[in-house]
Amino acid sequence: MQRVTVELDKHAYTIYIGSGLLADKALLSEQIQGHQVMIVSNETIARWYLPSLLKQLTAYQCDTVLLPDGEPYKNLTELNKIFDQLILKKHTRKTTLIALGGGVIADMTGFAAASYMRGANYIQMPTSLLAQVDASIGGKTAVNHALGKNLIGAFYQPQAVFIDIDTLKTLPDREYREGFAEVIKYGLIQDKNFFVWLEQHVEALLGREQEALIYAITRSCQIKAAIVAADEREMKDIRALLNLGHTFAHAIETGVGYGQWLHGEAVAVGILLAADLSARMGWFPTSEVARIKALLLKLGLPVRLPAELSVAQMLDIMANDKKNIDSRLRLILLKAIGQACVTDEVLRNRLEQLLADSYSR
Amino acid sequence: MQRVTVELDKHAYTIYIGSGLLADKALLSEQIQGHQVMIVSNETIARWYLPSLLKQLTAYQCDTVLLPDGEPYKNLTELNKIFDQLILKKHTRKTTLIALGGGVIADMTGFAAASYMRGANYIQMPTSLLAQVDASIGGKTAVNHALGKNLIGAFYQPQAVFIDIDTLKTLPDREYREGFAEVIKYGLIQDKNFFVWLEQHVEALLGREQEALIYAITRSCQIKAAIVAADEREMKDIRALLNLGHTFAHAIETGVGYGQWLHGEAVAVGILLAADLSARMGWFPTSEVARIKALLLKLGLPVRLPAELSVAQMLDIMANDKKNIDSRLRLILLKAIGQACVTDEVLRNRLEQLLADSYSR
Repeated sequence: MQRVTVELDKHAYTIYIGSGLLADKALLSEQIQGHQVMIVSNETIARWYLPSLLKQLTAYQCDTVLLPDGEPYKNLTELNKIFDQLILKKHTRKTTLIALGGGVIADMTGFAAASYMRGANYIQMPTSLLAQVDASIGGKTAVNHALGKNLIGAFYQPQAVFIDIDTLKTLPDREYREGFAEVIKYGLIQDKNFFVWLEQHVEALLGREQEALIYAITRSCQIKAAIVAADEREMKDIRALLNLGHTFAHAIETGVGYGQWLHGEAVAVGILLAADLSARMGWFPTSEVARIKALLLKLGLPVRLPAELSVAQMLDIMANDKKNIDSRLRLILLKAIGQACVTDEVLRNRLEQLLADSYSR
Repeated sequence: MQRVTVELDKHAYTIYIGSGLLADKALLSEQIQGHQVMIVSNETIARWYLPSLLKQLTAYQCDTVLLPDGEPYKNLTELNKIFDQLILKKHTRKTTLIALGGGVIADMTGFAAASYMRGANYIQMPTSLLAQVDASIGGKTAVNHALGKNLIGAFYQPQAVFIDIDTLKTLPDREYREGFAEVIKYGLIQDKNFFVWLEQHVEALLGREQEALIYAITRSCQIKAAIVAADEREMKDIRALLNLGHTFAHAIETGVGYGQWLHGEAVAVGILLAADLSARMGWFPTSEVARIKALLLKLGLPVRLPAELSVAQMLDIMANDKKNIDSRLRLILLKAIGQACVTDEVLRNRLEQLLADSYSR
């Protein structure tokens, strides 16, 4: 088992990474405070992993709420179902919520914990690769608004994160692959060696080999943990680097309608757009753009904007992105593989050209 | 103008108390960061105070959202209307929300600010006495759930609080009087001299005399600010003292349906129940219970449980109150006028008797 610590000002917590964690009764008991637990999950995940988890929790008042699966349900209405169950089952503010599922469950459970009686404990148990390397660490919780992604939420840190890689065995192929968009992102913004390692281990990763997986997840968590520790609430430009490709990605997801594209797929396109734009700005070698594209393709990820989305639509949605401070478009670009920066220097016509070219990439 | 500072770990802010504050352009500009403002108010209040406030804010992109008035509308659905406007008008996370209204507007605007893009600035401009001495200071924000009050929310502090006592001139009598339930509470939990001062200034207060009002509000804010500074997130038993009478009050409000009783009216009954219970526990002189009752009556506040609510209903709702840690009923009781304590020693049969007796008080 690997451990990564997230060191925050007022609170440190541990990310545990390994096999068989959801059956580790002692470790679970160590992290659950109080005597009430509310597991939040969805039908699909619950069928696979809920029974064994419940077996470890017989010492607690343990209730469950199952939400519909997918990004279109990450909204205030579904969030309210978590509150309904907490209140009906008389959970106090000392309860512990457990997020058992992918990124949607992670984000919603975190926000429910942040808001229930103004703050309850929660534990992340991500079951998708994407959630394991991204949503479940760092304390960004949120639901979507009809007009934009993750617009309603809180910074609220979990008590602990349990990444049981056994859960990846049942993950559908497309959802497995999308996780690598975020993994590649960590290499791009912070660690060239990790990017090279990824290029060299595509086969092992696609084969879901345990050793390679644990390394890729642990390294991703380490990079994210260090960034979050340096800038928990995205007040400086440090945490913003994690948004590489995400302004484009959110616009894609909003534009095609939540759930049509997976988040990681949109991020893959977004990363490549950011790299391409960096090259057009003269900050980044064109050859490296091709290299990133090649890795994305090998991992089965998309590299083109969806045909049904126009340049005008993309630009309009991007103007609404919450990363834009005082209405200026702020983007994360690359100076090198392993080095990112924040800029508001990109002019609209350059952005238009970038997007227009990207359909035929 | 009086100033009270709320000194928190990471953030200090000022409560300004005086006449003409909503027209003080310089003071407003000092406290608004960024160039966007979203004023949240309701029809009634907006008619009186919005035009003059808007005149001070011509230097900003200033938008407005008006919510329906009253506790029944303090829910997630109405909250979402604030998000709608923020997003439609392209407010970034650097925007400043202004809560112009009573406690409902204060609580909802605060929670909207806490959640919009995971945290925007906000300023409280309370226009009811109740909001001026309670809801608008201390950073407790929330909306109600169908099954209980304030169950969904956040601890989130404002940038500043502007208490313009001129706004009290248009406050209907019943809503003016309810504010004194909270004012009396501050005397009861912390400051016997203040309680005595209130007894001596009933007429000046009911006559809405400026000097008496400024003193009552300032002293209330000082007491609340000190308590909040000592225990921002109600982790110790200090902040809990502010809940004197509130477990009973919330049960009354939930039981009769939000909005039938005003919050302050329910608190008045709750305070008296707490005092009575303290006497029954042998901790508090019976003569002082009569004294509190007399002051409540002089200020035109109710002292009996609503006839339509049974003891069984009260007990059931109280069991759901979020102040109960691990299912034990926790109550704030009095040791003396000016001294409160937290206890879980009250037995159910004593509570039943207390409630049963209270209808004929």
